[in-house]
Amino acid sequence: MTSPAKRRAHVVGLGLIGASLAMALRDAGWDVTGSDIDEHVLNDALREQVISGTVMTAEHELAFIATPAGTVSAIANALLSDFEVGPLIVSDVAGVKSSIVHEVSDPRFIGGHPMAGSELRGLKGAKADLFRGCNWVLTPTDATSPETYSVLHGILRDIGANVVAVSADDHDRLVAIASHVPHLLAGALMNEAADAAEQDAVLLQLAAGGFRDMTRIAAGDPSIWPDVLFENSDAVNSTLVRLEKRLEHLRIALAEQSREVLEESLESASVARRRLPGRALSSEHLTYLRVGVSDEPGVLATVTRAASELLVNIYDIEIAHGIEGVAGTLLLAVDSAQAELFSDALRGLGFGVVRE
Amino acid sequence: MTSPAKRRAHVVGLGLIGASLAMALRDAGWDVTGSDIDEHVLNDALREQVISGTVMTAEHELAFIATPAGTVSAIANALLSDFEVGPLIVSDVAGVKSSIVHEVSDPRFIGGHPMAGSELRGLKGAKADLFRGCNWVLTPTDATSPETYSVLHGILRDIGANVVAVSADDHDRLVAIASHVPHLLAGALMNEAADAAEQDAVLLQLAAGGFRDMTRIAAGDPSIWPDVLFENSDAVNSTLVRLEKRLEHLRIALAEQSREVLEESLESASVARRRLPGRALSSEHLTYLRVGVSDEPGVLATVTRAASELLVNIYDIEIAHGIEGVAGTLLLAVDSAQAELFSDALRGLGFGVVRE
Repeated sequence: MTSPAKRRAHVVGLGLIGASLAMALRDAGWDVTGSDIDEHVLNDALREQVISGTVMTAEHELAFIATPAGTVSAIANALLSDFEVGPLIVSDVAGVKSSIVHEVSDPRFIGGHPMAGSELRGLKGAKADLFRGCNWVLTPTDATSPETYSVLHGILRDIGANVVAVSADDHDRLVAIASHVPHLLAGALMNEAADAAEQDAVLLQLAAGGFRDMTRIAAGDPSIWPDVLFENSDAVNSTLVRLEKRLEHLRIALAEQSREVLEESLESASVARRRLPGRALSSEHLTYLRVGVSDEPGVLATVTRAASELLVNIYDIEIAHGIEGVAGTLLLAVDSAQAELFSDALRGLGFGVVRE
Repeated sequence: MTSPAKRRAHVVGLGLIGASLAMALRDAGWDVTGSDIDEHVLNDALREQVISGTVMTAEHELAFIATPAGTVSAIANALLSDFEVGPLIVSDVAGVKSSIVHEVSDPRFIGGHPMAGSELRGLKGAKADLFRGCNWVLTPTDATSPETYSVLHGILRDIGANVVAVSADDHDRLVAIASHVPHLLAGALMNEAADAAEQDAVLLQLAAGGFRDMTRIAAGDPSIWPDVLFENSDAVNSTLVRLEKRLEHLRIALAEQSREVLEESLESASVARRRLPGRALSSEHLTYLRVGVSDEPGVLATVTRAASELLVNIYDIEIAHGIEGVAGTLLLAVDSAQAELFSDALRGLGFGVVRE
């Protein structure tokens, strides 16, 4: 008696995402092979048993292409024509989707984009649970077979992802606003400050929490960005144009001292930001609590231990510093049903607590 | 025998900053009186012993004006002329300095700006340690007596602040870049996304950690901003103009597919951001650790309890979600000297830990 043969998957490109995906599938019971243009990476992946082999066969049920956005279409089309017979499903993980789904028109292909990442890079940063709880966008087209979608959806759920289906065009338009343009903005602001700091290093001492928040993503690996931006240049361009208009509008309001325009703009942003879900699935059930704290060692532990003892899950946490100071405020998101209980417990421990 | 008379200070305006300052001075051994245009606030402050009285006398050595930026000059000049004899020093806490130091030209006046704040408001949010470890900018002018500066500097150090002296013009130019314009940017980006999300709510599911970081400050109280922006409109305007130029420049590079321009811009931003000090005094001493966590109740408590047991202070903490997902990464800033010890302890508890 032999156990049933393992399902087989292949991953092209064993960087952070590709290798994490190989590990996630491996841990979900798949036999995972892989390939990479860098022989060292491939050898490392084999040695570390991220993949079991390097050769794709007609028995493979699944292939993920985890290479730079500009190379996906050619690789996908080559795979689809090499393996015309069999149950093959091909998907990718690139951050821009329209051109790819346009160029790979096959019932067995679905574009995908796991909204997961890490400050780390490559095989070394890979981990099997990278996709657990992440939103994984799939962009089916009219060409996609429903069967393909349903099988892929099931596989992604098995590795812990929440599947979200949108059109490739919508995806690209929305990530321009939610990701690509913010990245350019963060870079522009950081460069502006860095230039000013060359004259006046004290600027960096005045750069408080808000500035740090706004420029954090600029610290990431810049090398992946030009391709992503070129692939999505229409949506990025039009978002940038709209944003420049908004800034110009604010600048004019400032010059004209029109308090009303400024207040309205800042107020609507404040309302929208407060409504931004901490996480998609349970946004309406979350309550934000502001807790005044000093940050001696142990304060955070006291707060979180209180949560833990009451079985209160903290969904989100931020420290709002007394700007660069030592004292600050904890912003905690908890289940609304538990907010009162938890607030009372914290007050009992001597903390000031305000519901947002 | 009587103990030596306490030094006397007066605080005008008992909002978050003014009341915190009164409490800090009180705890440092001063007799602190105060005033506020809101009688309820004044009564609360008296009842809660934030202040011991409401009347300023010729014995007062110090007066802080903690009222909105636009009202500071008139109050300062009135105080300075009411108490012409005596050791009085007058300072303020407004976020914009040039117009104030221009309008209050007196050897006994120094403009100031504590880089501290809180998401909380008013007397209720006040706390004595708000300024501990914060940068407190003083903006002496040619009119300021060195004696005044040196006494005030000593008092601020006594309440835990790090004093930074810059010219009022430099201050205003630098906070335009480090604070005022970032605030407008965050608001503009949030409004852009909110408008797009009205068409397509899935945008909010794609709005990941980077977007959340960039818009966080937009959530704050908008009401203080128009005054600050009007007071600093020249510097804010010219910073906005430069930033719009930078965005336009990037947009053109994108349209022309000039990879080199994009790479250079993103690379220089990445380098500058990585060099940005974690906090002014100890930036070089902080190490960032990424800790993989699930977020069942108790995980955060386990991590922070481990810190607390080892007397490791967590200077900064963020949850980087598996984008909106359940599993995530904690980003913790700790003293570099303790990073190894703490990482080992966390690994011993079964957490994956990566130094950033």
